[in-house]
Amino acid sequence: MFTGVSAFPLTPFRNDQVDEKAFAGLVRRLAVSGVDSITALGSTGSYPYMTTQERARVARLAVQNAGSVAVFVGIGALRTSQVLALARGAEEAGASGLLLSAMTYQSLTPDEVFELFRTVTESTELPVIVYDNPGTTHFHFTTELYARIAELPGIASIKIPGVPADPDEARRHVASIRAVIPERVTIGVSGDAFGAAGLIAGCDAWYTVIGGTIPGPALGIARAVREGRVEDARAESEQLTPLWKLFADLGGSARVTAAIAEYLGLVGPSCLPLPLRGMSAENRARVAAMVEALGLQPGPEA
Amino acid sequence: MFTGVSAFPLTPFRNDQVDEKAFAGLVRRLAVSGVDSITALGSTGSYPYMTTQERARVARLAVQNAGSVAVFVGIGALRTSQVLALARGAEEAGASGLLLSAMTYQSLTPDEVFELFRTVTESTELPVIVYDNPGTTHFHFTTELYARIAELPGIASIKIPGVPADPDEARRHVASIRAVIPERVTIGVSGDAFGAAGLIAGCDAWYTVIGGTIPGPALGIARAVREGRVEDARAESEQLTPLWKLFADLGGSARVTAAIAEYLGLVGPSCLPLPLRGMSAENRARVAAMVEALGLQPGPEA
Repeated sequence: MFTGVSAFPLTPFRNDQVDEKAFAGLVRRLAVSGVDSITALGSTGSYPYMTTQERARVARLAVQNAGSVAVFVGIGALRTSQVLALARGAEEAGASGLLLSAMTYQSLTPDEVFELFRTVTESTELPVIVYDNPGTTHFHFTTELYARIAELPGIASIKIPGVPADPDEARRHVASIRAVIPERVTIGVSGDAFGAAGLIAGCDAWYTVIGGTIPGPALGIARAVREGRVEDARAESEQLTPLWKLFADLGGSARVTAAIAEYLGLVGPSCLPLPLRGMSAENRARVAAMVEALGLQPGPEA
Repeated sequence: MFTGVSAFPLTPFRNDQVDEKAFAGLVRRLAVSGVDSITALGSTGSYPYMTTQERARVARLAVQNAGSVAVFVGIGALRTSQVLALARGAEEAGASGLLLSAMTYQSLTPDEVFELFRTVTESTELPVIVYDNPGTTHFHFTTELYARIAELPGIASIKIPGVPADPDEARRHVASIRAVIPERVTIGVSGDAFGAAGLIAGCDAWYTVIGGTIPGPALGIARAVREGRVEDARAESEQLTPLWKLFADLGGSARVTAAIAEYLGLVGPSCLPLPLRGMSAENRARVAAMVEALGLQPGPEA
């Protein structure tokens, strides 16, 4: 279940409330897109900005609109008891898996992060994805800590933050993780610019931001790798260079994907929760030009 | 009001609930200690780990137990609407001022942080302290942004994260901020190892972590600076070098201050909220030896 393309939809806001209609629309498109799973309430889904109640509601909406596609739900929070409450909410919503980050305010030690994962996996029947996102959490997992946590019976997958640019180094990096984790635990790449490289280097899954709104390109790249057409996968990823460049230039993949969804009318204007603000007119124009040049389309709604 | 020693008490937990009795005790000691103000729900007070409801309750307890001492309340949160709700809770509790950080998950732009402060100051009558804490929020204020925000009529003070070690550089740094902010806005130093140096360099206030549990040394240092006994202030701060060293070695001032309060029996064991864990027996022994060697005492309860 923790292989292939896992699509991370936005959680769009409108007047500081979750825009349930727009969110359901995003999930319904993913349900018929061919993605292998949907991960609601990832960083793209603004999980840390919402209350426990809002997040339980979003988890429920995701499951209700995902058809037969498995839904994973992000349960990261600063306090362990909040994480446990979020896990219960996701379970009750019918989630198939949980995505757990190591959110920090005071920095955490490896032992504290291990104990968090131990506590959570012991409290739920659902499989847990280790969510390594140092850019937002400022916690840095080591391969040694991956190994310790992956030994916990409830762990199903590790979402790693990209791979080295050099293909041989990327392969060695993925192999070095694989060597220390149980066979049941998959490795998923994130950082969309690294998606193709990660799959080619041996990752089992691609946890994708852009794929949560525009699933086509990620599905094409994943198919090419699966069929052994490595050069096709590389070429398809390279065609998306203007997108990867905007991710780097305009504040990251979540902000750019939100602007794309806004431009395409899939969500309302300025759909991220304040204090995050929509883009300037100039940057919106850059996003729009890129969308048109690459022909990015969301695919049909079920 | 935003001058002198502002003491930041811990918010102690017990079984994942705020230990209201222990918190009230900490505040009651501060109420008769001679500190100029009490700031509840700073980083030392674990503000980001609590719900809006818990924080409103802690704000109320702080005001109820502070006697005639002014209470400032931390209202930082990831989402603007949560910050506004926390500001209302602090107002209703009877706070005299608000402390607002630039918490991040997705990184924020200077414009977004400015708009956050604009929105909050326009929604409250209470004066607001700009809380610059890059170590935990990962947002880096510039002097230019201090200047923009300090122009907002509701801003009363800026809490800066330490000063340069060299006294002349420290003086120039504080003067460079002073030069661009209105006269009504005070500058307060934080990072306790920099307290003496900050006051000597011209800061109006010391926002102190250790002073929220053991106010004596901070009060002595502040008095020495006020009376022009700069060398005495430096010497008193240098005597505390073993404390500053533990702050650096054992995970920061909040964790060490929690361990001190635990050792002195002011709070229960492991008083920080999980996933933050209490110290190892070995590190507790280091803390205890330091407390005894320096003769740290909390002072009497009112």
